[in-house]
Amino acid sequence: METRVPPAASRADAERLDRRDRLALCRRRFVLPAGVVYLDGNSLGALPATVAPRLERVIGREWGEQLVRSWNDPWIDVPRSVATKVARLLGADPADVVVADSVSVNLFKLLAAALALRPERRLVLVPENDFPTDVYVARGLAELLAGRAAVKAVAEAELADHLDGDVAVLSLSHVDFKSGRRRDMAGLTAAAHACGALALWDLSHSAGVLDLDLEAAGVDLAVGCGYKYLNGGPGAPSFLYVAPRHQERARSPIWGWLGHADYMAFEPAYRPAPGVERFSCGTWPILSLAAFDAALDAFDGADMGLVEEKAGALGGLLIERLEQRCAAFPLEVVSPRDPARRGAHVAVRHPQAYAVMQALKARGVIGDFRTPDLMRFGLAPLYLRYADVWDAVEILHEVLATASWDRPEHHRRQRIT
Amino acid sequence: METRVPPAASRADAERLDRRDRLALCRRRFVLPAGVVYLDGNSLGALPATVAPRLERVIGREWGEQLVRSWNDPWIDVPRSVATKVARLLGADPADVVVADSVSVNLFKLLAAALALRPERRLVLVPENDFPTDVYVARGLAELLAGRAAVKAVAEAELADHLDGDVAVLSLSHVDFKSGRRRDMAGLTAAAHACGALALWDLSHSAGVLDLDLEAAGVDLAVGCGYKYLNGGPGAPSFLYVAPRHQERARSPIWGWLGHADYMAFEPAYRPAPGVERFSCGTWPILSLAAFDAALDAFDGADMGLVEEKAGALGGLLIERLEQRCAAFPLEVVSPRDPARRGAHVAVRHPQAYAVMQALKARGVIGDFRTPDLMRFGLAPLYLRYADVWDAVEILHEVLATASWDRPEHHRRQRIT
Repeated sequence: METRVPPAASRADAERLDRRDRLALCRRRFVLPAGVVYLDGNSLGALPATVAPRLERVIGREWGEQLVRSWNDPWIDVPRSVATKVARLLGADPADVVVADSVSVNLFKLLAAALALRPERRLVLVPENDFPTDVYVARGLAELLAGRAAVKAVAEAELADHLDGDVAVLSLSHVDFKSGRRRDMAGLTAAAHACGALALWDLSHSAGVLDLDLEAAGVDLAVGCGYKYLNGGPGAPSFLYVAPRHQERARSPIWGWLGHADYMAFEPAYRPAPGVERFSCGTWPILSLAAFDAALDAFDGADMGLVEEKAGALGGLLIERLEQRCAAFPLEVVSPRDPARRGAHVAVRHPQAYAVMQALKARGVIGDFRTPDLMRFGLAPLYLRYADVWDAVEILHEVLATASWDRPEHHRRQRIT
Repeated sequence: METRVPPAASRADAERLDRRDRLALCRRRFVLPAGVVYLDGNSLGALPATVAPRLERVIGREWGEQLVRSWNDPWIDVPRSVATKVARLLGADPADVVVADSVSVNLFKLLAAALALRPERRLVLVPENDFPTDVYVARGLAELLAGRAAVKAVAEAELADHLDGDVAVLSLSHVDFKSGRRRDMAGLTAAAHACGALALWDLSHSAGVLDLDLEAAGVDLAVGCGYKYLNGGPGAPSFLYVAPRHQERARSPIWGWLGHADYMAFEPAYRPAPGVERFSCGTWPILSLAAFDAALDAFDGADMGLVEEKAGALGGLLIERLEQRCAAFPLEVVSPRDPARRGAHVAVRHPQAYAVMQALKARGVIGDFRTPDLMRFGLAPLYLRYADVWDAVEILHEVLATASWDRPEHHRRQRIT
């Protein structure tokens, strides 16, 4: 699907696109610093304006004044509220989503559940270029299971060839964290099912920007991140999804009290809660969940079809401008041109990517760097304008045109992000 | 060790004890609602005054204005700061403590590590009356390991008899969540070592109130809770401890990116970080960690010997007053009299415990209820006064003397806490 948004040949064109943007009102729901073009929502989403007042209330009134009484009202309802809001963005029923723990822990839980759902099979099949942590988690589980599971990492293009009767679960990211390439969720899920395997998708780089429909795609299991395009705040809790057809048999390997069928009874024996709630675990992190809950209101009324379309159009404009304006410089767009094959970030290779990104940041254009030579520009449709993309490329052109990129200080390593 | 604090025979005596209390200044570090005697710090610690301004800064300035740049400064340093403050309260070196995830997840990680450290043994030995979640987590891990591990739950008094060559790890709470009874950490750890087993302690009900010395007690592994006596806020992250002698060989079963030796390199292969940091896992929950970090400053300068002594004295006063003032009512103190054998809460049995606690709460005395017939009164030494304990018993006496406790509405079940 090509985007219906026409290209912009001037900044005035870009401003015209912004005026016609049906998501423009969402930008006012964010607190954005002046003088900054924020192209790193794929790493840490911007701050929704609802978060600070919500946390002020949670801390001051609910914790400070009401103390432990707030567990019965309102904290007990916060995790369901978050799950319900996330579910809409996934094309899932709220009853099939839980928000808890980190992506790593949720992936561990679901991989263990998947292997137990296919007890006669032992392979976790992953693309060898998948997000490294996801592969680490699978390998750690396989080591723990000592022979009852193994990870098979194969080249992206050969994934389908390796789907056979030994594969318990195909586990992979929907949008590649480096290239921004989008994988064929429905097609690969169907291929997994054709050989009797399950499909587990990591939606960290697609939830909140793509028009997901987990049910239509037949997805079995999914995890994803709360702090990227969902804007839940640094280190926000993660979500997980279990298709209803697996819920009765799927078991979490970590039997925390909030996954118990009657968690206040403190029974000696563990009985898993009905449905997906059994994948809850330890005590809910209320401060983080309340921030996430407030943040998700930035999506109120936002049609996810429009959101995906705008992500594609912003990326298309960025690529077009990079190639026109910066043709004289050694930039290489790594992401697919076709927006239907892309997520919401555009990755660009440059021999001095780290240093160029530092210079961009110094001028208020914030993207990020991935070793060894990639710059990533995230295009969060809720708060970015076409004019922002235009300006970012103008500033990049200035940076590339005015500096020398071969000095040794340009080779420093980053600390984090 | 009997407490050196003399008993109080009148409210004036209690006030005199408060005036002489060397921890009295700590109370001013908390925001406490008027008209409330808060005896539930064992479930949710009260709000330290530093938390709200810290979160306002983290959200408004660090997240909102600085955005992703805050990861490099200051967020990357927050987890270490929290671990360092917690370590002092444990009698541990900061290098041996990590703060991450929930108690359930940390217990899962450490139990798996313990079993791998004793590969020729398969038993996790637990007291049958231990905190149910801790036993659930052990049983869930054993189920996952299918035959390579099993949980043996035995009567408290027989624990030592079951320490034999099959036991990989003795796993138990330091302070019992119901009775408040304190277990002999050094003695049981030595008994475990004598048979070649490891000892894993859950410090959820002792960290922040007892004068712990994990190193002196020879403890191998420990976990604990951030939101009880450490006042980290609802669902605060948990801590874990690994003795230095085990750190090189101990492995976390959940290979999250922050446990990697070079987490920003995104290497294809997992290499565990040196030391205890390998037990870090997913992205740090910064909002929760920042709140916890600020909250721990309430312990600044507080000598943990004094804190434990005051916990014992507050508990002693409560027990004494209950037995003197409420002798006519069917109350039974379940906790040990000897403060050296008690944690910082006192458990009291009453046939209508749920209803009595509801009536107490309506009068501003907040403790909690544990099914079927226990009331728990937590005595957090940092913010409780001797006069508060005096007043609580007076109000309890009023409640017991004026109401009828056999009406059916007194039998409702609680939702949470």
